[in-house]
Amino acid sequence: MTDKLIIFDTTLRDGEQSPGASMTRDEKLRIARQLERLRVDVIEAGFAASSNGDFEAVKTIADAIKDSTICSLSRANDRDISRAAEALKGANSGRIHTFIATSPLHMEKKLRMTPDQVFEQAKQSVRFARNLVGDVEFSPEDGYRSDMDFLCRILEAVIAEGATTINVPDTVGYAVPELYGQFIKTLRERIPNSDKAIWSVHCHNDLGMAVANSLAGVKIGGARQVECTINGLGERAGNCSLEEVVMAVKTRRDYFGLDVGIDTSHIVAASRMVSQTTGFVVQPNKAVVGANAFAHASGIHQDGVLKARDTYEIMRAEDVGWTTNKIVLGKLSGRNAFKQRLQDLGVTLDSETEINNAFAKFKELADRKSEIFDEDILALVGDESVTVEKEQYGFVSMAQHSETGERPHAAVVFTVEGKEVRAESDGNGPVDASLKAIESHVKSGAEMVLYSVNAISGSTESQGEVTVRLQNSGRVVNGVGSDPDIVVASAKAYLSALNKLQSKADRVAAQG
Amino acid sequence: MTDKLIIFDTTLRDGEQSPGASMTRDEKLRIARQLERLRVDVIEAGFAASSNGDFEAVKTIADAIKDSTICSLSRANDRDISRAAEALKGANSGRIHTFIATSPLHMEKKLRMTPDQVFEQAKQSVRFARNLVGDVEFSPEDGYRSDMDFLCRILEAVIAEGATTINVPDTVGYAVPELYGQFIKTLRERIPNSDKAIWSVHCHNDLGMAVANSLAGVKIGGARQVECTINGLGERAGNCSLEEVVMAVKTRRDYFGLDVGIDTSHIVAASRMVSQTTGFVVQPNKAVVGANAFAHASGIHQDGVLKARDTYEIMRAEDVGWTTNKIVLGKLSGRNAFKQRLQDLGVTLDSETEINNAFAKFKELADRKSEIFDEDILALVGDESVTVEKEQYGFVSMAQHSETGERPHAAVVFTVEGKEVRAESDGNGPVDASLKAIESHVKSGAEMVLYSVNAISGSTESQGEVTVRLQNSGRVVNGVGSDPDIVVASAKAYLSALNKLQSKADRVAAQG
Repeated sequence: MTDKLIIFDTTLRDGEQSPGASMTRDEKLRIARQLERLRVDVIEAGFAASSNGDFEAVKTIADAIKDSTICSLSRANDRDISRAAEALKGANSGRIHTFIATSPLHMEKKLRMTPDQVFEQAKQSVRFARNLVGDVEFSPEDGYRSDMDFLCRILEAVIAEGATTINVPDTVGYAVPELYGQFIKTLRERIPNSDKAIWSVHCHNDLGMAVANSLAGVKIGGARQVECTINGLGERAGNCSLEEVVMAVKTRRDYFGLDVGIDTSHIVAASRMVSQTTGFVVQPNKAVVGANAFAHASGIHQDGVLKARDTYEIMRAEDVGWTTNKIVLGKLSGRNAFKQRLQDLGVTLDSETEINNAFAKFKELADRKSEIFDEDILALVGDESVTVEKEQYGFVSMAQHSETGERPHAAVVFTVEGKEVRAESDGNGPVDASLKAIESHVKSGAEMVLYSVNAISGSTESQGEVTVRLQNSGRVVNGVGSDPDIVVASAKAYLSALNKLQSKADRVAAQG
Repeated sequence: MTDKLIIFDTTLRDGEQSPGASMTRDEKLRIARQLERLRVDVIEAGFAASSNGDFEAVKTIADAIKDSTICSLSRANDRDISRAAEALKGANSGRIHTFIATSPLHMEKKLRMTPDQVFEQAKQSVRFARNLVGDVEFSPEDGYRSDMDFLCRILEAVIAEGATTINVPDTVGYAVPELYGQFIKTLRERIPNSDKAIWSVHCHNDLGMAVANSLAGVKIGGARQVECTINGLGERAGNCSLEEVVMAVKTRRDYFGLDVGIDTSHIVAASRMVSQTTGFVVQPNKAVVGANAFAHASGIHQDGVLKARDTYEIMRAEDVGWTTNKIVLGKLSGRNAFKQRLQDLGVTLDSETEINNAFAKFKELADRKSEIFDEDILALVGDESVTVEKEQYGFVSMAQHSETGERPHAAVVFTVEGKEVRAESDGNGPVDASLKAIESHVKSGAEMVLYSVNAISGSTESQGEVTVRLQNSGRVVNGVGSDPDIVVASAKAYLSALNKLQSKADRVAAQG
């Protein structure tokens, strides 16, 4: 047992499984870079066998990221495992994470396999994976609701086959801390070769206890890896939050006595990047990364904080990357200042072309908005058109009008494969009219399942950042657009989502 | 010890202390009615001595709510306690909740009192309160960071003076479940008269463990009251979430063995009401009440859910009040159908005038939007102008235009004390222009600290609901407006916020 707690981030795999949170390869790569900057130990980059798109994403990340171990999920079969190994070829350090369900309910109803069949398949898969890579993680899906005797038998066998990490998921978020901690402890005590593997926890937040359950698995159970996601992203109520579990271990080092390698100063930037990419807002009262997490309202509290910071604060805002909202750049700022600011914000653009595109957008924005905040810059680089080089659709210009008693109307000029088209429509509001105008020409037939607006620095003078989520033939994509004019931002977001719908992908998805 | 867990909701007190979450008396009353509908045992309605506004809010709620106990917070002094007792006079069942800080840090830095002074003041205050009401709760603020010997001494003394509930706050969210549970257990074991009071937990979520800590206080410590808020609203990262703690106790009845009286079918409506009132969004991956809490994306999960619901669901969406998003009303629906639907949604309007106002707005909306969803109706009654009878400012009409290459422009017609005025302005975007137009006439000087948009049923065809938060001379207010045209919704929200800034209130605020 080591006194280091391994942080395994699965934002790009389990997080991406949230309805509506699917990401493009480029988005995943950008987030992976931020996770590397955070010094995450293991990045689960995707589920290579689930689709060609996910294979490419895992491969791109494995090739690009050097400091973190890159992991791919795979079902417990040779084809999935081979695809994972292939995607991970370029990694400095690669891990295959294979899983099969072990709870009576899942084996019977979902897999329609007997326990003995599951046992054999788990063993064979781990053996097969170990012949391809040295670092193999095994998860008994719905492990926490599995029969203890069966779980001991199967986990002993996969460790004997060479599994180096054993992860025990509470797939449905049913656990409570004391019981989950004891569950891990019992497994480790009963399995004779349990000391040959690192034990890992993977908790879902359905009852609001994912962080506490994970930490009970660590403290009581002796696990030394926590699986978690930025902002607690993940199916249903999501996974254990990286930022919460890391800050808990750091703040209560007196109790946990463990080291974590995370550079917490990049947490807020990571949270924003994931929120902007997925369109999943972070609520103001979210621990660590919510807008109010370090704010005090009541007179008594303010007074207390003025007298002694410790009276109401157990963490420092700057330790997790909160900085005061200050004007950083303006009209006269040059390309180098802009580039430097991007670096300070932890944003890496992949080519000079991208930096040039972003800088052009920055200058254009600075012409319209005198004070440029960090948030504006992050929104600007989050804007799809900076990074996607060849797009089907591009925004050119628009005009819109609404007036009480009349039907709102919009005309949008945009490019289709480089050629300009002009489309117009009315609608329930000016945003609706502008999107209907675009759709009247494109005829995607996509259904809008989410429309969300973030005013980036809290007032209407700032840029509006809009996320549009479209669904078509079972695919769900997010488009993001930003502009001081919310109607323009909406049109940009819609075009960006249409571009993503164009890129083909079909996928099988994974466990929770 | 009883096997009933008392649910003490402090959305209207600790929740309202969040920066930006302050509510008007009418808003508080509406939420209190929803809490009564939820069958919350105790509603902490405010802190009567903190301001005249809060006194009125506590009094109004105490007079109106009959099924729940109504509680007012008060500092440990005779004046505060007398004000609380006065506000609670009309209650069927009233409780005074008095507090004083007991941690070395808080006593020394904030109160500048010796432990003996704090001890005496606590005793005297509880005695004074017990002479006014039979139900007195005492909280040692920052209790979890207090010296155990001192805490035992002071709590034994206040129980002897007649405190009927002892609440142990983890004011700064520093606890972990095992230690917090043991802390409560030790207190109950060491204090000779501990069986004369009901023990209560009050946890903050700074490290993401408020729910687990509260439940450890219950399971390990033997507490029988949990203090919590809807959506986990509260200072910084907020309080323990009512919906999470209640569903955990219900779902894991096998472990907790406790009854809760909550009617969970009203949880989602309560969550929406609090979110709409405060402008605090609920993130999609929030447990129980988030939009994704019961949604499944991945192919494997969908398949599993189809084969057997229990494979991935431990709670049923309908048990907490999620219904499918269906068209409920249209153009031809009459007043009775509308009134019935309001009732089904758990909305009580206070007078026939309010119902008439809401119905007029409904008809106006139905003219512009063919499908009216539950969300539209909730937004409509959340719209301030339905409930506030006499307003300083009222929206009449507007026209706005934006076009690439030109500066966005808006003209707004609104009433000022009944008289129409017309104002116009340009701005960074059409929303900015319309708000600047209003401000150019009103000259409030208020600073906008939040602008947020909710598209109510996920597409741009639906109404946009806008929250504008203004700050002026230390006061923070929220205005909400809804309209299918997002620019109009923004103007309405701004006018609504200005109306609230008009109503005078100064307040001292409270503990966490």
